[in-house]
Amino acid sequence: MGILLLINGCFMLLCLPFSIYYESGDWHAIAYSSGITLTVGLILRLATKNRKNKDLKKRDGYIIVTLGWIVLSLFGTLPFLLSGTIPNFTNAFFETISGFTTTGASILNDIEAVPKGILFWRSLTQWIGGMGIIVLAVAILPLLGIGGMQLFVAEAPGITPEKLQPRISETAKRLWYIYLGLTVAQTGMLMLGGIDFYDSINHALTTMATGGFSTKNASVAHYTSPYIQYVFIFFMFLAGTSFTLIYFALKRNLKKIKGNEEFKVYSIFIAVITVIATITILVVTDQGIETSFRQGLFQVVSLVTTTGFVSADYTAWTPFLTVLFFMLLFVGGSAGSTAGGVKIIRHVVLFKNSFLELKRQLHPAAVIPVRINGKAVERKIVFNVLAFIMIYILIFIVGTILLSAMNIDFDTAFGAVATSLGNVGPGIGKVGPLNNFAEMPLMGKWLLSLLMLLGRLELFTVLMLLSPHFWKKN
Amino acid sequence: MGILLLINGCFMLLCLPFSIYYESGDWHAIAYSSGITLTVGLILRLATKNRKNKDLKKRDGYIIVTLGWIVLSLFGTLPFLLSGTIPNFTNAFFETISGFTTTGASILNDIEAVPKGILFWRSLTQWIGGMGIIVLAVAILPLLGIGGMQLFVAEAPGITPEKLQPRISETAKRLWYIYLGLTVAQTGMLMLGGIDFYDSINHALTTMATGGFSTKNASVAHYTSPYIQYVFIFFMFLAGTSFTLIYFALKRNLKKIKGNEEFKVYSIFIAVITVIATITILVVTDQGIETSFRQGLFQVVSLVTTTGFVSADYTAWTPFLTVLFFMLLFVGGSAGSTAGGVKIIRHVVLFKNSFLELKRQLHPAAVIPVRINGKAVERKIVFNVLAFIMIYILIFIVGTILLSAMNIDFDTAFGAVATSLGNVGPGIGKVGPLNNFAEMPLMGKWLLSLLMLLGRLELFTVLMLLSPHFWKKN
Repeated sequence: MGILLLINGCFMLLCLPFSIYYESGDWHAIAYSSGITLTVGLILRLATKNRKNKDLKKRDGYIIVTLGWIVLSLFGTLPFLLSGTIPNFTNAFFETISGFTTTGASILNDIEAVPKGILFWRSLTQWIGGMGIIVLAVAILPLLGIGGMQLFVAEAPGITPEKLQPRISETAKRLWYIYLGLTVAQTGMLMLGGIDFYDSINHALTTMATGGFSTKNASVAHYTSPYIQYVFIFFMFLAGTSFTLIYFALKRNLKKIKGNEEFKVYSIFIAVITVIATITILVVTDQGIETSFRQGLFQVVSLVTTTGFVSADYTAWTPFLTVLFFMLLFVGGSAGSTAGGVKIIRHVVLFKNSFLELKRQLHPAAVIPVRINGKAVERKIVFNVLAFIMIYILIFIVGTILLSAMNIDFDTAFGAVATSLGNVGPGIGKVGPLNNFAEMPLMGKWLLSLLMLLGRLELFTVLMLLSPHFWKKN
Repeated sequence: MGILLLINGCFMLLCLPFSIYYESGDWHAIAYSSGITLTVGLILRLATKNRKNKDLKKRDGYIIVTLGWIVLSLFGTLPFLLSGTIPNFTNAFFETISGFTTTGASILNDIEAVPKGILFWRSLTQWIGGMGIIVLAVAILPLLGIGGMQLFVAEAPGITPEKLQPRISETAKRLWYIYLGLTVAQTGMLMLGGIDFYDSINHALTTMATGGFSTKNASVAHYTSPYIQYVFIFFMFLAGTSFTLIYFALKRNLKKIKGNEEFKVYSIFIAVITVIATITILVVTDQGIETSFRQGLFQVVSLVTTTGFVSADYTAWTPFLTVLFFMLLFVGGSAGSTAGGVKIIRHVVLFKNSFLELKRQLHPAAVIPVRINGKAVERKIVFNVLAFIMIYILIFIVGTILLSAMNIDFDTAFGAVATSLGNVGPGIGKVGPLNNFAEMPLMGKWLLSLLMLLGRLELFTVLMLLSPHFWKKN
């Protein structure tokens, strides 16, 4: 926790140059926030430095991960609160945890009025969250045995199932370089499209994290240039791809990529839905074919990768696209990317298993396993994946009922819960692409914050702490 | 198929007395329909009488069940078509399959204007459907290994896992007597409340089948007497209870009932949701506590048992109850009752398994089975149940997307698909409690008809016929 706060405090300092350059008058708020965070971090670090037992156990993993995200979000509210940008604590916490969970749901009505330093911090929370997710997905969750993440681990480079520490440092560092490299590349390509450095780097930070915070009120719809929109699409697609796969691509190990079922399904799924969306947009609007294709592709990639940028109000076209795009909130990107949600690999396991069940009924004595990338998946892992999806749906249902009990209408409740749990950002109804979460009731904001955390930490990490089994000694 | 048509033709004749007594002028339409059905049935029967191989195999089971329901529905349209009550074939088929699947979704705008004989046939289709479901649930589906129905079979009286024939006749007959007895009892109790014989028997037929067709335009809301509404509630509750459990109750084998987890969950679930609904109704309306309780209980029991009678427009109260009652469309009654939907027992397996998954993650080496009624459930069956629920949700999603592609709005598409697949009847939006399915587009009616069939036959029975595995020789 101490180390996390120290890192967080250092990241806050990165906002100072923007604050000073733009003379946005928020430098003291940032400096104070950083000071407080660094001080608390230092105290925690020193207090625990001389503890003898430094071995991390499995149980510690659940606690560190969940508490880590909460503590980061708590201290992350400081710049918003101290600068007066978001004076209300609930709102500040909602905005910050929406950042660290890379969700991108916002309560800000006028984003462009926010001081530049603070706005940069807002984008940074997502980028830091994305960094955290990479470690989590590649090194920690598989060790905790969560929701079929083991499936994916076999693919990660340089992993041996030993202690926690060496795994984190080795693998995560390689993937962080990729993450950093892609962020720099996107910043450059956006600048080539005529966007200034500040807006380019902010959008690159939130794209690679599949977060979707924008520095513009209209999100990416602010930029009408097709080139810029295609750049966004390209980098969102990459951010929703497994980072280990990108690593293999850079190593020119194309066999790994060709043999990867999740990537195949991810690409084909986006292609198919884009074709459907393009045709629909072409029919119901008077836009040309290129615009329809671009709008369709943008929204599909943005929702599937759980980024949540919008280049158009997709709920205004036709009820069909509202329903279709609502369903996309439940897809999620690839495992091992920064994307949230259910994830493609789980859907693949789910579909394969469902169809094999028909075969199993006809041949009850035969053992018919699910195969991924040509290998039979352990029954235990299939079970785990199914349980994950079930609990995901249960939480979605309970969340929707609770939110509607706060007098939120049918569409809005469904949309808000689905988009928070899936870490997407915009929903439908009153939290649609053109609106934000400012009007949500107080309790609703806390509920949605919890859902973002649950979704981001693959449910089990948080639920485990609520389970009586966990706290039993033995 | 021949036998089924002969039975169907005979049942049609039961409508004649009402037709003649009320001089409703539909006797010739009924007589012709019965004649055609009996003739075709007789031809089929005679044509296959001398076939040597009369053994029914597992594969035949899937075909007979699916085809049986379709053939019954096709011939069941005759009275509607020939009498001119529903001149359009699509509408007639929708109404008939909604009957045989005990769904209760209707395209009739003025039910009270339908000739009495035809109206009785409409109620009878549900009752016949209910009879079919009892055989299916107790004798056929478990043998086909469908969706965890094996769980329930262990509880059925006098079942030995041998050939198909003796199982059907022995067990089903006992349960049919109960079904018939309860229908007679309800008819009597409704008459005691002042309803005439015709309306009483019609409502009793559709209550016991958890169908929900009414002879009144306003459904049960037509009857304002609390006594009558409580009678409906009582018999809906029984119809949603496992008939084998009622059999044990009549045998005074109370141990079986006390030890039955599904019944416990079924009762407690209804009680809890009713309390929530009652309080909500009390707060948002100016109704008294008894009325609020009765309205709440009525709607909850009606939706959980998938009957679909309405005693009030539940979507008019508050968005919270709309969402809550929408979710109830996914619950379903007990296995072994006439209720459709997912069924309580599957939810019990789902919940237990999900929570055990947390325990399994902490102790990866331990074998931690789901227990129902104190016994460990085979992993294969748990798998089967999870696959069932997943496919249910997949079909719900695909159905909603397809329906919304026909330009149906978000709420209506969700409601229509959920209520059809769950065999309930009324949905939300434009197919809410006060509306019907008349305005659905043509293709939408066929889609919903397919969903009713899928839901009623526990998905796998129909899906199996669409699977390439099924048609492979060996």
